[in-house]
Amino acid sequence: QNRDELKSDAAVISDTGMIARGTPTPSYGLGGVTALEIKVTGPKMDLHSGVFGGAVANPITALAQLLATLHDRQGRVAIAGFYDRVKPLEDWEREAWRKLPVDGDKLILEETGAPELFGEAGYNSMERIWARPTAEINGIGGGYQGKGTKTVIASHAMAKLTFRLVPEQEGDEILKLAKEHLRQNLPKGVTMEITTGHSGPWYLTDPHSKLGEAAQRALRKAFDRDVALIREGGSIPIVSQFRGILGIETLLMGLALPDCRAHSPNENFPLENFDGGIRLNKAILQELAR
Amino acid sequence: QNRDELKSDAAVISDTGMIARGTPTPSYGLGGVTALEIKVTGPKMDLHSGVFGGAVANPITALAQLLATLHDRQGRVAIAGFYDRVKPLEDWEREAWRKLPVDGDKLILEETGAPELFGEAGYNSMERIWARPTAEINGIGGGYQGKGTKTVIASHAMAKLTFRLVPEQEGDEILKLAKEHLRQNLPKGVTMEITTGHSGPWYLTDPHSKLGEAAQRALRKAFDRDVALIREGGSIPIVSQFRGILGIETLLMGLALPDCRAHSPNENFPLENFDGGIRLNKAILQELAR
Repeated sequence: QNRDELKSDAAVISDTGMIARGTPTPSYGLGGVTALEIKVTGPKMDLHSGVFGGAVANPITALAQLLATLHDRQGRVAIAGFYDRVKPLEDWEREAWRKLPVDGDKLILEETGAPELFGEAGYNSMERIWARPTAEINGIGGGYQGKGTKTVIASHAMAKLTFRLVPEQEGDEILKLAKEHLRQNLPKGVTMEITTGHSGPWYLTDPHSKLGEAAQRALRKAFDRDVALIREGGSIPIVSQFRGILGIETLLMGLALPDCRAHSPNENFPLENFDGGIRLNKAILQELAR
Repeated sequence: QNRDELKSDAAVISDTGMIARGTPTPSYGLGGVTALEIKVTGPKMDLHSGVFGGAVANPITALAQLLATLHDRQGRVAIAGFYDRVKPLEDWEREAWRKLPVDGDKLILEETGAPELFGEAGYNSMERIWARPTAEINGIGGGYQGKGTKTVIASHAMAKLTFRLVPEQEGDEILKLAKEHLRQNLPKGVTMEITTGHSGPWYLTDPHSKLGEAAQRALRKAFDRDVALIREGGSIPIVSQFRGILGIETLLMGLALPDCRAHSPNENFPLENFDGGIRLNKAILQELAR
């Protein structure tokens, strides 16, 4: 409706990451995301496991068995067709990412405190996060969760799933494939309801386009260091709308450090990046005006 | 300590079930039970799935994969050695149970509202409940369980398990086998803590012993109907202590109907069974005194 008033050459957003302190980091890609929720129901009420145990299916067991079919043991998503549209990593991307001034694997281990790295074989941590789609169980619940023991067979159990999407995956198609997979793998003795959430699309732009080169020059100028070209796993849905509605590309010039704890307790941002951001704003206007 | 004061010929308990209205029902066996709790931990804090998804193991996914190894798809417990000590059903038991004045399969479907029967192949519902051991997941929890979507990779996930035991299974041995199974099947990328609960033993007595026959006669007298010989899946741990400490057997002469909803909302008990219970108390004293 306000397309004409919003006419512009490019959008500039800094809601992405900086790979290391002082390293200017243009992101040329974002993940998409889509969501669904599963409810598995067995008996019409919670049952005494001594009185009924063994004769009816346990919805928590059934849900666990169902969720276990989502991945193989190497971390690859086992939904048929899930990877069909996924663009393979370009050679130049792989090379650029391997030259980043950080050890991505080490970074992930330190930031997460996970006991070890785990993910799809054939990729390092940054490749997994930036370029490979995921199926994550964000929440699960059912039965008795309090202290001690309650010998109950719960009436139902639920799980919340999101899928991180990469180019060229379509959210609606992934939801359809996921629903088919879940229906085909539902264990006997229970029923299932699936509620689908909405989808936010992925984004990919060319860092070597005229605009992309302007962004790289501006970042170099503001931080006086070579740029590190990255993509991100997170999602900024409006970027796709800028492209679809306004017909413009978005330059993602991130200022958040890897330990910024986005959306977590102790979220933080270094003061020096406020200064850097001011320099960057001046520089990008100069470069776009050239 | 008070063994002498408590010296007696037998104990009589009515905390078991009556298979159908008006059908006197001596139970000659009870299940045992034992419990454990699993906590699976991945990252040290909840993570943003867009920033870290794909590079670390998801504890909920790992827990689901682990729990899915507990049973095969036919409902049989897949823990190595789990059935080693289980006594096979005797021919007379199978026969007695198939002559019961109720259709056990139909009863279970009606009482539970489950979409279909489900359990170990080769057994009907009553055999599964009374004579076959189970592994039930009584509760599961992890991550975001509220409304809508939260794209989090949870730091940890937990599940509560109980095992229903039948003669001659030992609770401590089953817990040991279960722990071994869980450790061997833990997916990569996470750690696990197991907390074991305590064990209540099973009970089995001979319904054709002198005492057992007295109980049957008393029940016949009180209800003026042929008895239905059953076992139960539930547990009454003190019965094993009566045997172990006092050296006496317990006569289980139940008065609760199948729809009594034991330990559930709308628990109920028919008035006519109060009258029956009074008649039964008189009759059992007469029969034991013969």
